[in-house]
Amino acid sequence: MSRRPEADYVVGVDIGGTNLNVGILPFAGGEPLAFRTQATEAQRGAKFVVDRVVRMIQEAMKEVMEANGRGPEAFAGIGIGSPGPLERKTGTVISTPNLGWRNFPLRDLIQNAVGLPATLDNDANAATYGEWWMGAGRGVNSLVGVTLGTGIGGGIVLNGELYHGAADAAAEIGHMTIDSTGRKCKCGNYGCVEAYASGPAIAARAIEGLESGASSVLLELAGDLQAVTAETVFEAVVLGDPYATEVMHDTAKFLGVGLANVINILNPEVLVISGGVTRAGDHLFDPLRTEVRRRAFRVAEQACRILPSGLGGKAGVIGAVACFKREKYGKV
Amino acid sequence: MSRRPEADYVVGVDIGGTNLNVGILPFAGGEPLAFRTQATEAQRGAKFVVDRVVRMIQEAMKEVMEANGRGPEAFAGIGIGSPGPLERKTGTVISTPNLGWRNFPLRDLIQNAVGLPATLDNDANAATYGEWWMGAGRGVNSLVGVTLGTGIGGGIVLNGELYHGAADAAAEIGHMTIDSTGRKCKCGNYGCVEAYASGPAIAARAIEGLESGASSVLLELAGDLQAVTAETVFEAVVLGDPYATEVMHDTAKFLGVGLANVINILNPEVLVISGGVTRAGDHLFDPLRTEVRRRAFRVAEQACRILPSGLGGKAGVIGAVACFKREKYGKV
Repeated sequence: MSRRPEADYVVGVDIGGTNLNVGILPFAGGEPLAFRTQATEAQRGAKFVVDRVVRMIQEAMKEVMEANGRGPEAFAGIGIGSPGPLERKTGTVISTPNLGWRNFPLRDLIQNAVGLPATLDNDANAATYGEWWMGAGRGVNSLVGVTLGTGIGGGIVLNGELYHGAADAAAEIGHMTIDSTGRKCKCGNYGCVEAYASGPAIAARAIEGLESGASSVLLELAGDLQAVTAETVFEAVVLGDPYATEVMHDTAKFLGVGLANVINILNPEVLVISGGVTRAGDHLFDPLRTEVRRRAFRVAEQACRILPSGLGGKAGVIGAVACFKREKYGKV
Repeated sequence: MSRRPEADYVVGVDIGGTNLNVGILPFAGGEPLAFRTQATEAQRGAKFVVDRVVRMIQEAMKEVMEANGRGPEAFAGIGIGSPGPLERKTGTVISTPNLGWRNFPLRDLIQNAVGLPATLDNDANAATYGEWWMGAGRGVNSLVGVTLGTGIGGGIVLNGELYHGAADAAAEIGHMTIDSTGRKCKCGNYGCVEAYASGPAIAARAIEGLESGASSVLLELAGDLQAVTAETVFEAVVLGDPYATEVMHDTAKFLGVGLANVINILNPEVLVISGGVTRAGDHLFDPLRTEVRRRAFRVAEQACRILPSGLGGKAGVIGAVACFKREKYGKV
């Protein structure tokens, strides 16, 4: 398939457990236009979420059309990033614990409602491809992305291409075991990176320490024990709270073990870390780099730059557009 | 570079900490001709080992020349597999704990002594590429190889190509942390797969249990405690010894944790396991597959066949030839 010459824009959609992001990119790339965010409200059901996404797309397209005196022919299509596992070929989400979807034909529902061709890829893959296309790892040969949030996702770019694996299931970095008899993970396994360094895991570890009598400003910030979140931990770190700083330091070490494993296996040029936790800055990156240096092979560690996201919350939308271009036209 | 039409053979060299293997392959592949094995005797120094390899190559070439009435023009070159880390471009071994080499120009020394062009790649990469070319994973798109021996090595084939990473340091599967506060590994790190499932680690775990009073035929087989090796454990398993069977079962579980990580990250079609330990057969593969099923994502686990080596001790030689062909002619 080759691009219609008048198709100057591509729609990017980033579906998350908490928020939906939509934006429109010039075909050659650039800052997302008409970018918008709304709550997912997954508990209201799959139809509600799809309707909301479709409306966000239509509104964003309208905004761009009006600003540029253009019609619907200006849009080449829609790239969608969604939690998985999913099947790219059929555009089907196989299951998403956070959204509650099973064998859900997400791509075609959006494609048919909007009337534009669409592609579907994993949300963390999309964000990683975005960082490779226009972010922290622009144009490098090999890049691994790690997204820290409610879950921990990953994406792998090798030879400038997203690597999907035999069943579109590659790059589940959050579910790498780093302590085989360790903390229980939501996936049912024990000792996954996600069981230590996801937002809820950070909060859970902080609460456990407080329950054991750690003194900290955390309780004051959160109001009560169960209200402590990763966000509260981050606030307390900024205030210089020693206990919260220790929790963050532990988080960085656990992550460092996982990232050292990734470096020992994939020896990438760049590792991009994104998500709210990265706002902790040096409190996260310093101990993380120390742990990686301690555990990864020297040659591989020295070849790898560990960087914070260059695109922040827009990586998913930008990357979904990159995935669309790659899938439909063979290159980004 | 294109192949001389009369170059009907390629020499394969597999350098290991214990043994040196040399064989000669018909250009299109096949059973190695004039295959030979000698002890490495690394303690006698680098020059000794290189001289021995060169002599083995010359003898094997002579054998093939005489049998076929051909001259030296019948050989396209030499593919070499060696422990690393190493730099393919310059043909230099950066360091090898087992052989004691540092910044050693292995490729050129052999190339100049024999008078044929040579290439150098990591030994586990070569063995993996061999399994992809002519072994257990013939022609699949994605394959990960794991070699179990004195150390644990790995190789990754993606899209039918060996994946080397940014600094030729990819696929160090043996040094993946599976227990971040676990057993000390020779690499200096804690809790690497190799610290549990290499030959010496299997022996060490077996000995620890015997020291704690486990009753077993092992002591009788080995003569004394410190003489217990992975080989003795394997013999005792064959004899039905419950303690040795438990040690093998634990080995399989530890390996399973590591392989589940590999499957969650790379989602390969095939995982090939090679090395002496695989002779334990179902005693190894049954609990290993169970652990992988327990820990890896369902979609990825179901897409992956876990297979024993198809080439056994000849994988390194065959794969080194595949590496030579790929590097010199762009395809295998």
